[in-house]
Amino acid sequence: MRCEVVAIGSELLLGQIVDTNSSWIGEQLALAGIDSHFQTKVGDNLGRMVQALETALERSDAVIVCGGLGPTQDDITKEAIAAVMGVDLELDDEVAARIEAMFTSRGRRMPMNNLRQAEVPVGATAIRDPQPGTAPGIIAPVGDKVIYATPGVPSEMKEIITGAVLPDLIQRAGIAATIVSRTLRTWGESESGLAERLAGRVAELDRTGNPTLAYLASGIEGIKIRLTAKGPDVAAAEALLVAEEAEVRAILGDLVFGIDDETIERAVLALLRDRGLTLGLAESLTGGMMGSRVCDVPGASDVFRGSIVSYAPEVKFDVLGVPEGPVVTAEAAAAMAAGARRVLGADVGVAVTGVAGPGADDDGVAAGTVFVGIDLGPAGGDAGPEAFEVKLPGDRLQVRQFAVITAMSALRSRLLAAPVAEPSPYAFP
Amino acid sequence: MRCEVVAIGSELLLGQIVDTNSSWIGEQLALAGIDSHFQTKVGDNLGRMVQALETALERSDAVIVCGGLGPTQDDITKEAIAAVMGVDLELDDEVAARIEAMFTSRGRRMPMNNLRQAEVPVGATAIRDPQPGTAPGIIAPVGDKVIYATPGVPSEMKEIITGAVLPDLIQRAGIAATIVSRTLRTWGESESGLAERLAGRVAELDRTGNPTLAYLASGIEGIKIRLTAKGPDVAAAEALLVAEEAEVRAILGDLVFGIDDETIERAVLALLRDRGLTLGLAESLTGGMMGSRVCDVPGASDVFRGSIVSYAPEVKFDVLGVPEGPVVTAEAAAAMAAGARRVLGADVGVAVTGVAGPGADDDGVAAGTVFVGIDLGPAGGDAGPEAFEVKLPGDRLQVRQFAVITAMSALRSRLLAAPVAEPSPYAFP
Repeated sequence: MRCEVVAIGSELLLGQIVDTNSSWIGEQLALAGIDSHFQTKVGDNLGRMVQALETALERSDAVIVCGGLGPTQDDITKEAIAAVMGVDLELDDEVAARIEAMFTSRGRRMPMNNLRQAEVPVGATAIRDPQPGTAPGIIAPVGDKVIYATPGVPSEMKEIITGAVLPDLIQRAGIAATIVSRTLRTWGESESGLAERLAGRVAELDRTGNPTLAYLASGIEGIKIRLTAKGPDVAAAEALLVAEEAEVRAILGDLVFGIDDETIERAVLALLRDRGLTLGLAESLTGGMMGSRVCDVPGASDVFRGSIVSYAPEVKFDVLGVPEGPVVTAEAAAAMAAGARRVLGADVGVAVTGVAGPGADDDGVAAGTVFVGIDLGPAGGDAGPEAFEVKLPGDRLQVRQFAVITAMSALRSRLLAAPVAEPSPYAFP
Repeated sequence: MRCEVVAIGSELLLGQIVDTNSSWIGEQLALAGIDSHFQTKVGDNLGRMVQALETALERSDAVIVCGGLGPTQDDITKEAIAAVMGVDLELDDEVAARIEAMFTSRGRRMPMNNLRQAEVPVGATAIRDPQPGTAPGIIAPVGDKVIYATPGVPSEMKEIITGAVLPDLIQRAGIAATIVSRTLRTWGESESGLAERLAGRVAELDRTGNPTLAYLASGIEGIKIRLTAKGPDVAAAEALLVAEEAEVRAILGDLVFGIDDETIERAVLALLRDRGLTLGLAESLTGGMMGSRVCDVPGASDVFRGSIVSYAPEVKFDVLGVPEGPVVTAEAAAAMAAGARRVLGADVGVAVTGVAGPGADDDGVAAGTVFVGIDLGPAGGDAGPEAFEVKLPGDRLQVRQFAVITAMSALRSRLLAAPVAEPSPYAFP
């Protein structure tokens, strides 16, 4: 089964929007074990959309088209699919009734344009819109091949891909069973390191063929492990999945920080919230990136007090109370963490200081050298702040991004181990 | 002249890397007035690369291939181009000598693999590598059409596109002259607003046809205006460009904050550095994003002291000295800016507070409501902090991004007007 992706929109070609939808779909296809050899972007032009779809159908078994399903005259993806199928569009009465009901319930009259969203090519099926009033997706058979259409809005696209397109694709791939899957997110071990730890388990899975396990390296998002299980029905497949997740977690332990779309910041905030703890940060090389990522998490204000971005050394000394001297040291990181707790009135303090590069800094510290400081306060038995050093790879931006994840991951493992804090080679009592 | 882009790399299809190169090239083609109707991504597979190139050449006059020029066995873009041309690869002695000299100068022996980078398809030309030792680009004529190849490393790709590919494309498009261009970056006015201001000037340019002017909306990067001039030689074309830039700047004034790759943070830091001023920030809804963007600018440490991320109201009161009460107000923003100056020991303070959404917050303030506070200190004649309100569009992330740019843009205009600070409806003496 080969499936390619066609993204629709002149704004993609003009560079006004970066096409992250295709990347996300590509990742989902890879994790589901479906080959994807080409991705194409094409503008809002009927002839060229038809051309792109026909080219894609010639070389693949399935095509996912993303975008161009809205209510305006620019949105002509369904017209293009109908042209490829050699059919007309017809109104899907059920979809039309749902759209009309949505307007009525809000006391508004439906503009006629919105009925366009209820049209489907003859012979195609509307994918029930997960949120009433949004554009439904389409499953359009073309001979023994198939075109799927999803809206371009990322949240709607993801729901339709996960809920309808992937299950249909997997079924067409000839797997006559219910398939369920889950992604375990890890941090702290390389792909080859994970593979080594899981070698025995994977050999076992290879023998049975169900469930399956696949890796995907996702840069600063860590390495993802996708578990996919099949069974005669959902309950049976889910049971296999749950059992396999437990096996893998037993082997990997705390390396697994979350599942599916859960970021490490989200995992950390959830742990803090469960324990009734607030968080204060002190940042140097990251310049505010750690705070910015933490408050991307919905509901962060329950837990997140703030961050002291102490880019200049004097701010470390004067505001955070770091002892005067070199500021890229374990001692400085520990003092920053303690300072963040005190200044921000937080239960837990986390700090990063280091050299993002490029080149070496004034003190002769190599780029990529980062110290993380953590002070758990009473939650860690008042053991005082600790710190550790890491050497991070990559350019200036990557070093800063890795520093954020490293600090969040270290806080997570300490919270899991609390109230008995881990001993640290750099503990400052 | 139609030109499409083919990006090479299995990691692009797997979603491990988002293809920002194609977006950037698409933008450059649009600004140069060259139509681009399709973009394709294909993995590191010879047969499929040849297929993608042939498909692209059928429907366009030129193809830019990006990636797959490195020294490893995976890098087979030149093999694919040679297959499309129906020729072999041959060693370009000059390129080989330069690569060898680079290794010799570093006292190292060249691995034989690196000679692969000196091979070009027979009949194609190597684009002299701007940095010795990196992969050269390729110009490969195919009948009356052409394939260009560039490395996938963004900085190398951009140099080769700007320095060699675009000039060659423009020449092939039948413009027998030297072409130079420059992008003016603006903030603070919509595309239609800019078009209205420039209507008279554009009418004049339309009459002469040289220079030309094009707009490109780039989201939170503002709206770009590309000026392109042609002349019998570089000096003549440059002279036209310089004169036209002066005309446009005279009309738009401070709406133009920079040229080409200059971000607004960079423009602001340069202004501060010129005036010998340091910067301190206080952030609420942005959570550290403003500090993170400021310290993305190389050399930020000369100017940037730090940021107090005061997400919790108590941090605003206790650390920044904001009077207790509602914190999404002009008064709070002004007090935060003054507090940032004082706490961080900075000459100039900038603050943002507001509601990123979604929905309304506890105080009933609508999402998108943001207050920016600025305190220029002695540089503003000690007039005290001021603040203003803006209503920003978009989702949670966009509101925060727009808040950063709005604050930076406001600081810029005040620095340009200093020492006489602009009067503000929310001035707090």
